[in-house]
Amino acid sequence: MYMEAIDLKTILQTVHRVSIFTHVRPDGDAIGSSLGLQRILRTNTGLPVYLYCPDVIPAKYGYLPGVEHFRRDLEGSVKQDLVFVLDCSDLERLEYLKEKLQQHPRLVNIDHHVTNDFFGKYNLVDTRAAATGEMLYQLSRVWGFHVDFEASLCLYSAIASDTGSFKYDNTTPETLRITAELLQKGIQPSLVSQKLFDERPYTTLALLGEALKSLTLEQGGKIAWMRIDDNGIEKCGAKPEELDGFVNYLRDIENAEVGIFFYHARAGNTKVGFRSKSVDVARIASAFGGGGHPRAAGCTVEDAPSTVIKMVLNVVYAAVDEQQRERLIG
Amino acid sequence: MYMEAIDLKTILQTVHRVSIFTHVRPDGDAIGSSLGLQRILRTNTGLPVYLYCPDVIPAKYGYLPGVEHFRRDLEGSVKQDLVFVLDCSDLERLEYLKEKLQQHPRLVNIDHHVTNDFFGKYNLVDTRAAATGEMLYQLSRVWGFHVDFEASLCLYSAIASDTGSFKYDNTTPETLRITAELLQKGIQPSLVSQKLFDERPYTTLALLGEALKSLTLEQGGKIAWMRIDDNGIEKCGAKPEELDGFVNYLRDIENAEVGIFFYHARAGNTKVGFRSKSVDVARIASAFGGGGHPRAAGCTVEDAPSTVIKMVLNVVYAAVDEQQRERLIG
Repeated sequence: MYMEAIDLKTILQTVHRVSIFTHVRPDGDAIGSSLGLQRILRTNTGLPVYLYCPDVIPAKYGYLPGVEHFRRDLEGSVKQDLVFVLDCSDLERLEYLKEKLQQHPRLVNIDHHVTNDFFGKYNLVDTRAAATGEMLYQLSRVWGFHVDFEASLCLYSAIASDTGSFKYDNTTPETLRITAELLQKGIQPSLVSQKLFDERPYTTLALLGEALKSLTLEQGGKIAWMRIDDNGIEKCGAKPEELDGFVNYLRDIENAEVGIFFYHARAGNTKVGFRSKSVDVARIASAFGGGGHPRAAGCTVEDAPSTVIKMVLNVVYAAVDEQQRERLIG
Repeated sequence: MYMEAIDLKTILQTVHRVSIFTHVRPDGDAIGSSLGLQRILRTNTGLPVYLYCPDVIPAKYGYLPGVEHFRRDLEGSVKQDLVFVLDCSDLERLEYLKEKLQQHPRLVNIDHHVTNDFFGKYNLVDTRAAATGEMLYQLSRVWGFHVDFEASLCLYSAIASDTGSFKYDNTTPETLRITAELLQKGIQPSLVSQKLFDERPYTTLALLGEALKSLTLEQGGKIAWMRIDDNGIEKCGAKPEELDGFVNYLRDIENAEVGIFFYHARAGNTKVGFRSKSVDVARIASAFGGGGHPRAAGCTVEDAPSTVIKMVLNVVYAAVDEQQRERLIG
């Protein structure tokens, strides 16, 4: 990373403009990293720095300084710019915006995903970094650039977001040392975490109550599931995206091995979300045409909810039974 | 702290036994600190180290190495021991165990609460420390004692617990630097946070669903409240203590200023929990004979729930209105 960073500092002295791109469905790392880098470059180089994201920025990030700078459309050309693409494993994640970046001579790819395909002219890829925001702080150090309070707030939010408030195993000692330096600039962790993790609309809490009405435990508590449909969502004045994360409540039940959330849309299909502590749910989801990771997976089945629930539960029963037997033998 | 630590190291070389005490209703810092100090002293001095707490250790801390060492009863004398009292602002927090510690000549008080009354012969009180666990790590450094994986896991848990996974404003740069060193010993943050923050019994989630049936928003969304009674708790097979923290769901609603949770017990009284983002709820609780902090308070009213709800809401309406007016004027 060090060598490329030196090259980049030289390039920064020759360009007249910088553009920063980040991915569709932007998360806290995408947004915080983009805003942090914008602020660092503006204050340390005086260059104009533009921000692009192919999506609307969710309202919960409204506390981040400069969040109003993001643009969804790129009218002119960025050919003369130094271009940073942040937190993207490949250019597809920029959707329609990627067209403007084909064969760009000064494209800098800064990312921490293991699936990164090195699409840039310069590729700063560190898969041990917890967040792109962590890498940008290290880059600022190498560049000798000052990171002020506003930039620190953005990078701190990026790191807190991608580590789930330092709960995930991507949190390393280096992550915490960098976060310590950012905190030193005067950040109040409670204000950030309230926005990132704790605040939710009234409708989401009402929707959780509605879903919990169907909460069911099976197989001696090894399987927990619940369900909802579009009628339930409308009753709460909520939107389907507010269901995000509900399946985690099921996984977090003591002694539960598998949590399953069923969402039946009026269109006729049933979305199934799986979370697991040990059973491989990616295998189960793929049996229904879906996929994911061993501990977090999903599928969509074109059938009525009662049929889907029965089919899926039968497969999960078998998987949990098999695991029980393996434990007894092993 | 440094000078007293040096004295203590000398004393450690003269005693034959160490006893560690921590407070009633022990939390993660009390338990993690006690176990961490026990482990550090055992491995570095070879002395026998006993642990006392006047309460049962909650099952969720079962993952901590050595948690089975805690005793609730003290039969012999600890007069000859070096005695540490951890995370206690005063000796009352040891309940009946304090009797054995009157005028003890080698009583070491290690704590971070601002209300600490310096009850020890030696008093290591640092109100800037996020947790007693943080102070013990610093003490080990001064002593030149090795902190192994097991002790690190205990101290890490103590700090994570008292900072709400680094979300509270007691988290300082020094807290994070110390946590970085503990993490370096091989701790998996996800395993700890799952136990400390995320796992809950099935009955607690069912109880949340039951309580959410009464979720109500008032005054244009500024006030959110819900209620439950002993029938609702029994229906879920839950215990009243599982209601702890439910009021936070109300405070965390976007745009809500005050969250209020009502629990009516069969005995006839109604417990009221308040959380606030700005309104002073300690003043409201004290009007009903309770108390607390401006942002978190509570009271118990000897009346039927419908009466209590009406009375309390009227006072909260007035407080929210008053605050609105002040904002318009100011």
